[in-house]
Amino acid sequence: MKLLITGGAGFLGSLLARTLLGRGTLAGRRIEQLVLSDLAPPAAELLAHPGVVARTGPLLAECSRLGAERFDGVFHLASAVSGECEADFDLGLRSNLDSTRALLDALRAAGNVPRLVFASSAAVFGGDPPSLALPSVVRDDTLPLPQTSYGTQKFVCEQLLADFTRKGFLDGRAVRLLTVSVRPGTPNGAASGFLSGIIREPLAGQATRCPVALDTMVALASPARTMSALIGAYEASRESFGGRTALNLPALSVRVADMLGALETVAGPRVRALVRLDPDPAIERIVGTWPARFEAQRAARLGLEPDEDFLGIVQQYLRDHPAAIRVDAG
Amino acid sequence: MKLLITGGAGFLGSLLARTLLGRGTLAGRRIEQLVLSDLAPPAAELLAHPGVVARTGPLLAECSRLGAERFDGVFHLASAVSGECEADFDLGLRSNLDSTRALLDALRAAGNVPRLVFASSAAVFGGDPPSLALPSVVRDDTLPLPQTSYGTQKFVCEQLLADFTRKGFLDGRAVRLLTVSVRPGTPNGAASGFLSGIIREPLAGQATRCPVALDTMVALASPARTMSALIGAYEASRESFGGRTALNLPALSVRVADMLGALETVAGPRVRALVRLDPDPAIERIVGTWPARFEAQRAARLGLEPDEDFLGIVQQYLRDHPAAIRVDAG
Repeated sequence: MKLLITGGAGFLGSLLARTLLGRGTLAGRRIEQLVLSDLAPPAAELLAHPGVVARTGPLLAECSRLGAERFDGVFHLASAVSGECEADFDLGLRSNLDSTRALLDALRAAGNVPRLVFASSAAVFGGDPPSLALPSVVRDDTLPLPQTSYGTQKFVCEQLLADFTRKGFLDGRAVRLLTVSVRPGTPNGAASGFLSGIIREPLAGQATRCPVALDTMVALASPARTMSALIGAYEASRESFGGRTALNLPALSVRVADMLGALETVAGPRVRALVRLDPDPAIERIVGTWPARFEAQRAARLGLEPDEDFLGIVQQYLRDHPAAIRVDAG
Repeated sequence: MKLLITGGAGFLGSLLARTLLGRGTLAGRRIEQLVLSDLAPPAAELLAHPGVVARTGPLLAECSRLGAERFDGVFHLASAVSGECEADFDLGLRSNLDSTRALLDALRAAGNVPRLVFASSAAVFGGDPPSLALPSVVRDDTLPLPQTSYGTQKFVCEQLLADFTRKGFLDGRAVRLLTVSVRPGTPNGAASGFLSGIIREPLAGQATRCPVALDTMVALASPARTMSALIGAYEASRESFGGRTALNLPALSVRVADMLGALETVAGPRVRALVRLDPDPAIERIVGTWPARFEAQRAARLGLEPDEDFLGIVQQYLRDHPAAIRVDAG
């Protein structure tokens, strides 16, 4: 089978590519070609793999060509992130809405009804005062009230995907990804970036700031659970996916204080002390619109589970990124 | 003040234009110019009014010019209807989504933050089996699950409008219009068209068909209540509108049998007998995805009320369209 990953050079796209190449199959079929589309070329280690092809350039410009390649399956991860979309409204509309629309149009034109997993986001949820509040627990039928341009664009794309699916133009499954922690590498401009940074930077021996209060509760998923969600959504039968509505995912709900507690458990108080509390009202405002607790029954029926605890997530990071650890930890 | 009505030559647009011209003011300001944009020119009687200007052509092509006119207020009613959008997917995307996006972009570019009322639709609601059912009563926080392209496009435009409003580019208020009954004139291609036809055609002495079962419950609003909703949404303060989420409206919930009963009350059994039961599975399927009961608390707080009964709606039609009545009724 021939697969496309948009955003294939990003963190999640690269990890998905490595995960799929490691498996060799998807939904019972052998992966023969894996096309990685992104603004930047993929990592050399991925490009060196036989069967991996890079398509480098803006997705909006690549779409019609990509559509003509008649992919069996697509993971559509390409996206501008929340902070970027708030700072540059046109960039968000172009990168998230127009590009997704162009991709759907191109895949429809190809005519082979590919399966497509769309990386939506829990940022579709929020409260819209004074009439509509964010409920304390997000359920499968909770009304999304996006309070950022990023969340709005993701929610709009969910709707378009559902209708393209209803019409039989493709087999779409939208999955509302949670904040992924711990991300490796450098900060990416997302308002949620600190939820990786407060673990990653101290483990690299670097001071960092925490822009929200310690008792802030957040909903997270590890990179491994995020891969399970994307692949699980792809491999689910149309019936077991449970409708065309986007899927909420099981979340680990954790206080920032407990995240730092896990850091201290693996690396000690001196490493924990590298995190300086430095509230940023702009970040606090955005994070405050995101839900912290999920009851994801549809996802549970698909066999998707939340991370067990944040200590396990930190241990996953230590295991997967030994070269990034510059302190005594483990 | 200078106002724009898109879809200004349609039934609702024309009625709104007449209503506004009759009032002379909106939100306490004198209406100096009323621009009616539509594919077709407005009625001669409207064009003859000083201050009325027609802009005839596809909205998508007109948008940038319209934006440059710096309107104080806009009623955005232009839309392809549900039946058309199901039959021609591209037409629906172009007429409903692309045109609305272009209008929002153009109004934003004008820079004067106009107030805009968007005619969304109760067709945003539906059930998405097997996980998510349409609840028996639609409340202000009910999750829309559009099951038609028309409903999808309306819901997407609501989201874009809310985000343009959040960013301060315009002051948008989306109102989810109910099926309007009794519409005068000729059928318009909407799947809901029969909900006017089964009253209008018999009153014109013509036989007609009812494509759904008599015990089908539907949610309706009269033309007069629909005007009250559009104007009420415009005149509400930003605070009293109660958020940026689209507003559900108070509905009259009525069985088709009771609609025909009201027809018989005003025009007798022989006129009632002009309605032939002739189920159409395609229409029944679409109508079955629409909600029949609403509990619209936000709208009630704005002072919006449902029609009292269907007999009153039929009497409104008799009063407003005497030339269309060809039977003994009243």
